[in-house]
Amino acid sequence: MRVGERAYRSIWLAADGWAVEIIDQTRLPFHFEIVRLESAAAAMDAIRRMLVRGAPLIGATAAYGICLGLRKDAHDRHLERLATELIDCRPTAVNLRWAVERMLARLGPLPPDRRLAAAYREAALICDEDVAVNEAIGTHGLGLIEALHRRKNKEPVRILTHCNAGWLATVDWGTALAPVYKAAAAGIEVHVWVDETRPRNQGASLTAWELAEAGISHQLIVDNAGGHLMQRGQVDLCLVGTDRTTATGDVCNKIGTYLKALAAADNGVPFYVALPGSTIDWQVDDGLAGIPIEERDADEVLRVQGQDADGRVRSVAIAPAATPAVNPAFDVTPARLVTGLITERGVCLASREGLLGLYPEQQ
Amino acid sequence: MRVGERAYRSIWLAADGWAVEIIDQTRLPFHFEIVRLESAAAAMDAIRRMLVRGAPLIGATAAYGICLGLRKDAHDRHLERLATELIDCRPTAVNLRWAVERMLARLGPLPPDRRLAAAYREAALICDEDVAVNEAIGTHGLGLIEALHRRKNKEPVRILTHCNAGWLATVDWGTALAPVYKAAAAGIEVHVWVDETRPRNQGASLTAWELAEAGISHQLIVDNAGGHLMQRGQVDLCLVGTDRTTATGDVCNKIGTYLKALAAADNGVPFYVALPGSTIDWQVDDGLAGIPIEERDADEVLRVQGQDADGRVRSVAIAPAATPAVNPAFDVTPARLVTGLITERGVCLASREGLLGLYPEQQ
Repeated sequence: MRVGERAYRSIWLAADGWAVEIIDQTRLPFHFEIVRLESAAAAMDAIRRMLVRGAPLIGATAAYGICLGLRKDAHDRHLERLATELIDCRPTAVNLRWAVERMLARLGPLPPDRRLAAAYREAALICDEDVAVNEAIGTHGLGLIEALHRRKNKEPVRILTHCNAGWLATVDWGTALAPVYKAAAAGIEVHVWVDETRPRNQGASLTAWELAEAGISHQLIVDNAGGHLMQRGQVDLCLVGTDRTTATGDVCNKIGTYLKALAAADNGVPFYVALPGSTIDWQVDDGLAGIPIEERDADEVLRVQGQDADGRVRSVAIAPAATPAVNPAFDVTPARLVTGLITERGVCLASREGLLGLYPEQQ
Repeated sequence: MRVGERAYRSIWLAADGWAVEIIDQTRLPFHFEIVRLESAAAAMDAIRRMLVRGAPLIGATAAYGICLGLRKDAHDRHLERLATELIDCRPTAVNLRWAVERMLARLGPLPPDRRLAAAYREAALICDEDVAVNEAIGTHGLGLIEALHRRKNKEPVRILTHCNAGWLATVDWGTALAPVYKAAAAGIEVHVWVDETRPRNQGASLTAWELAEAGISHQLIVDNAGGHLMQRGQVDLCLVGTDRTTATGDVCNKIGTYLKALAAADNGVPFYVALPGSTIDWQVDDGLAGIPIEERDADEVLRVQGQDADGRVRSVAIAPAATPAVNPAFDVTPARLVTGLITERGVCLASREGLLGLYPEQQ
């Protein structure tokens, strides 16, 4: 997607052909800063500290993390250690594991001296495939938006989204925002309600920034407001991403998604989840029982980062100093609350049958 | 309630016997600062800028606002103008109107030269009655907590609350927190999940502060987290306040309350609303259609106030400069999602029949 005059992906190979460059997403929206990763440790740190985030981008970064690690040592033991350490960086997102396992499957059978070049080829392939997959999600989701637009006699389609499932969360296009970008390109007027998404405010800092860069109409709301807007008939569609989807269609996504799904169900608002097939965990049937939920630092709850009057980015405490806090990063939305899943292969019901219809090879 | 060594109410008459003193709640939790109000304009400003907030405290402040205004001019026209201007300060809370109308009913029939003294007596009465009413709410709510405590074999009762309905929202005791204070005093172990309550963070800045001062176990969570905690069986009871309750039991409270009520219903968690009878609007049957929802400044969404590393309280922007935002301050929770109402007269179902059982004089 374009940032000012230039088109960017969220991760790319540096001009030297071996280092990896990313956008430091913790610095957005106030600073657009590119960070150069030169080691597996740097890639892990970028994942853990959320310089990169979003399930697909985490996967792509992990793939390049393997490449960077193999530059030092391409033997089995090191490859395996790299894989384990990368997977441990964030426990919830399933395409982190998926990307690492794909790299292992590709590299394991090769002799060590042929692994490095193959790793770079595979990581690039993961990135290119992610772009194609997300564009396909956009095309399938566009169909839903077009249908709503027709039903509304061409009035603007108002879409609520939570967190950031835009191009910054993937290699390009985004998952939940891909249909929005496609709709805008097709000349359909859309308006996006952007959930702030505490504690890390990815809505305010990333989604609002993306939509502004793309010139798409949007308004920021606090996470508390979405139910009220749905009650008042001001939301036509909820569209979110996911970090892990179970084989039965339960959806694990950024904390608070479940509350919006409840409000959508209570008000008859369609609730769709956009996802690449790589976020489906075919091993898990029950999202509540089977998905580990990452607990992040209480400080994310107790503090907020923003820009002061002098343009300096600061972190401020919002609670008394000794206040204890808990910070679960994700929640699980049961399939019964999900109207449908938008994948690269089409739209399906959030159910085992729905998913197997699109992914029959998992039968 | 005690702050450090001293017992405070949230509003009181100054030592000189005519000015009114309040705690500047926009400065909490980092500064405990007392502000002296000497005019009706100052009282209105305190209500509008939310130095005082919480339906009962707004009512008490408005009552004293009338007193301060009458010091300048006690004639009919001025009294009526004062009343109208005070009511217009915040459109959603019904006890603002209730308190002002009570003052009018008391003062209107008197000759102007007897109004001032009567006004101070009536305002003091409103405050004293509020304290008694809230203490009674506490006693009735305590019964619910005791029952849960027994059912849990004396394990701690975990209560989720939204916004601040503590003593700072009333003259003393609070509404939703009154039962919590009573339970703690009765030796029942409670743990309070404190919703941050964006955009103004009353949970983080007021509720967490109150509970810490009272030595009651609590943890701050983002507004997004409550549904997840309920799914995991970590919430025994939701307990919130309200700014206006309809004659049929719909509850208008701080934005986001509706989302927690949905999650409570979805997970079989009892959802109780604590309220003084003065917040019941007997004229309104349908909360969604009949209650005006205050729209506040978009800046409250776009900015967050907190304390920086040097101890200075600052406001920081969390979104790109040009981001548009909307800021509805309240939402309506339909009666069907409310397990029960806790009033000064007892606990009842959230329905016309339930309310009329406790307030038969409204038949």
